[in-house]
Amino acid sequence: MPNRSQVVIIGAGFAGLNAAKSLKNVDVDVTIVDRRNFHLFQPLLYQVASAALNPSDIAYPIRSVFRGQANVRQILLGDVVGIDLEQRKISLNDGSRVSFDYLIVATGATHSYFGNEQFEEHAPGLKTIEDALYIRRRILSVFEKAEKNPEAAEELLTFVVVGAGPTGVEMAGAITEIAIHSMEHEFKNIDPKSARVILVEGAPYVLPVYPESLSEKAKAQLESLGVEVITDSLVEVIDDTGVTLKDGTRIESETVLWAAGVKASPLGQALGVELDKTGRVIVEDDLSVPGHRNVFVLGDLAKLDDVPGVAPAAMQMGRHAAKLIRSDLNGKPRKPFRYKDKGSLATIGRARGVADFGTIKFSGFLAWFSWLAIHIWYLIGFRNKLVVLISWAWAYISFRRGARIITGQPRPD
Amino acid sequence: MPNRSQVVIIGAGFAGLNAAKSLKNVDVDVTIVDRRNFHLFQPLLYQVASAALNPSDIAYPIRSVFRGQANVRQILLGDVVGIDLEQRKISLNDGSRVSFDYLIVATGATHSYFGNEQFEEHAPGLKTIEDALYIRRRILSVFEKAEKNPEAAEELLTFVVVGAGPTGVEMAGAITEIAIHSMEHEFKNIDPKSARVILVEGAPYVLPVYPESLSEKAKAQLESLGVEVITDSLVEVIDDTGVTLKDGTRIESETVLWAAGVKASPLGQALGVELDKTGRVIVEDDLSVPGHRNVFVLGDLAKLDDVPGVAPAAMQMGRHAAKLIRSDLNGKPRKPFRYKDKGSLATIGRARGVADFGTIKFSGFLAWFSWLAIHIWYLIGFRNKLVVLISWAWAYISFRRGARIITGQPRPD
Repeated sequence: MPNRSQVVIIGAGFAGLNAAKSLKNVDVDVTIVDRRNFHLFQPLLYQVASAALNPSDIAYPIRSVFRGQANVRQILLGDVVGIDLEQRKISLNDGSRVSFDYLIVATGATHSYFGNEQFEEHAPGLKTIEDALYIRRRILSVFEKAEKNPEAAEELLTFVVVGAGPTGVEMAGAITEIAIHSMEHEFKNIDPKSARVILVEGAPYVLPVYPESLSEKAKAQLESLGVEVITDSLVEVIDDTGVTLKDGTRIESETVLWAAGVKASPLGQALGVELDKTGRVIVEDDLSVPGHRNVFVLGDLAKLDDVPGVAPAAMQMGRHAAKLIRSDLNGKPRKPFRYKDKGSLATIGRARGVADFGTIKFSGFLAWFSWLAIHIWYLIGFRNKLVVLISWAWAYISFRRGARIITGQPRPD
Repeated sequence: MPNRSQVVIIGAGFAGLNAAKSLKNVDVDVTIVDRRNFHLFQPLLYQVASAALNPSDIAYPIRSVFRGQANVRQILLGDVVGIDLEQRKISLNDGSRVSFDYLIVATGATHSYFGNEQFEEHAPGLKTIEDALYIRRRILSVFEKAEKNPEAAEELLTFVVVGAGPTGVEMAGAITEIAIHSMEHEFKNIDPKSARVILVEGAPYVLPVYPESLSEKAKAQLESLGVEVITDSLVEVIDDTGVTLKDGTRIESETVLWAAGVKASPLGQALGVELDKTGRVIVEDDLSVPGHRNVFVLGDLAKLDDVPGVAPAAMQMGRHAAKLIRSDLNGKPRKPFRYKDKGSLATIGRARGVADFGTIKFSGFLAWFSWLAIHIWYLIGFRNKLVVLISWAWAYISFRRGARIITGQPRPD
């Protein structure tokens, strides 16, 4: 078997996972390297942060995904610390090295504070399970603090979400629902309904990449839920006690969440090729790195015109890279990657959402319901689909949230 | 309302929760103080540690439990740092004080290393959600480490569980099942089935408080599963690389778990009354503290002859204390507490268990199934019952575990 091509995939997100799956019947050996032992269904991460779902409802062991795929030879848990394109080797943090004939780099993105890294301490972003549990602890804890110090309730129960992309909109909606519905009749000294949720966005619209008509609808739905929407407004300061906007407005708040932007994974730099200003690798139209036809960069780490940083694009890229490897092995020419936009969906809260399927646009209950159905469809694992379905059905009927527990005192590792 | 008796309950475990519920129709005001915002169903905690269940499947917000109970006036999240029986006040860690007419102290127990506190660093015990997630991370991580270092697999895949009470037996069985079933065909460099699970017990039997015939059956079932059972053997040393028994036997192991004993919550000391050698408060036959008829100590913190430290006893004590408060208010005499032993059940793994209902004793599938049914019955919350039922059914059919994710890099706060 030494003659089989060795494909190394770094990152088991949507792009890497789909690349590996699509290589199932291709005559190669696949090695997958990831920092974590699970694939994370990131679009539902905000539901963990907002106490609706459990971590493992949206996480699935990578090894289990590939249990039946014989050509996935190795799954390695580790950090990649170096990539040598000439020697065709990657180095891991434990000192080991792995050789490749083809390399797929799909390590995604993390949140970006646009140079204001000092914001991070006060305004956590949402990219990992740990982020989500930390945010959940922060959100739930302020209600408990306010119950003990009702005189400080106004500041304690003011939540600021910075950034009105899908994650920011979803978080703002979810926090409002916690305050309005989930805790009804459960506090004696405060009224959770008195909580203020303020969504701050720099662009003139919420969901700025959506068509304007849907952005307007999303804003109206957010406001009908009780979210205060401030657009066209940048954040100047985030500190211990709140947020100051560029226009001088001060908002006293104990809980500020950051959903304002992403930057690419630092692994892009290890390739030694041209990056865009957010750190993404500028790839050829076949998703390969300029000058290295055997190296693909996929998903949020890749910069290709007109391809957005969303899960469906990452999945399509993964499948495309696998196809090109097969083409190479069969001596066939490569086809360029073409992104198929299947539409966009965002949810705002209970029975609220917006949908943009090109010619068809809609909002409200139907958009929300479509969002639920599609997300369950794409979740990995029968148990996870079933448990999420039940959790959502139960939450819809009972107005409660299934994971309202404050956990996470750090332990030694 | 100033004339209504104020009942303060410290601890919302089985005893405290049942006391508060049983006070529902009694003309008192109830205040509940707990460190956590949830009631934890501790008998299933080992299932979180062994990746079968999620934390919130076995945890339920205390506020939600009492949403419909008007006389629960306050639920306070905090640590009790002082109890003044003369002034009838408790002090919280935030400096606040709460007055009581009746006080119920039910803060349970924690694991005890019997003076060998240096063991704790190497051999975590299982009492909190955080303990369980830490143990889960440790167990799952060694398989990943062994995959990368197969030459160290022997030590890495040796698990030692110290203590063969119900928790130790359940943990040993669960780890064996993870190794045998859940990871089948998922590793390339190691065979998870090669894992050794060693259960060490100081007494001559596993499940030492059970009848001897059932202890023998439990041992046979453990061994049929593949667990190595060492009885009559004490642990001398636990260090970085393993365990040394009193007889000099050395077991090299990366993962040692402590299930060998409990000691009472330190709050017992704050009462200034007589304690037994494990720190439990020696109570009167009506569960009150000697000399303080208005102060009850319940659950694992109470020492009363012939009452074991198990969940059913704690529940019965909670209900009894509530009854006595009602008797007092109605000017009726108090009845002593009588523990009703409804039997004991322990599970050992898939379709294995032992049951002791006095005259009826049985083991195997029926004991296991009874265990499942009773635990679902007593779980709080419809969603939790349903999700646990599904998780168990799915695990039984698929041989997999629903929460096999390695999480928990500590975060600030």
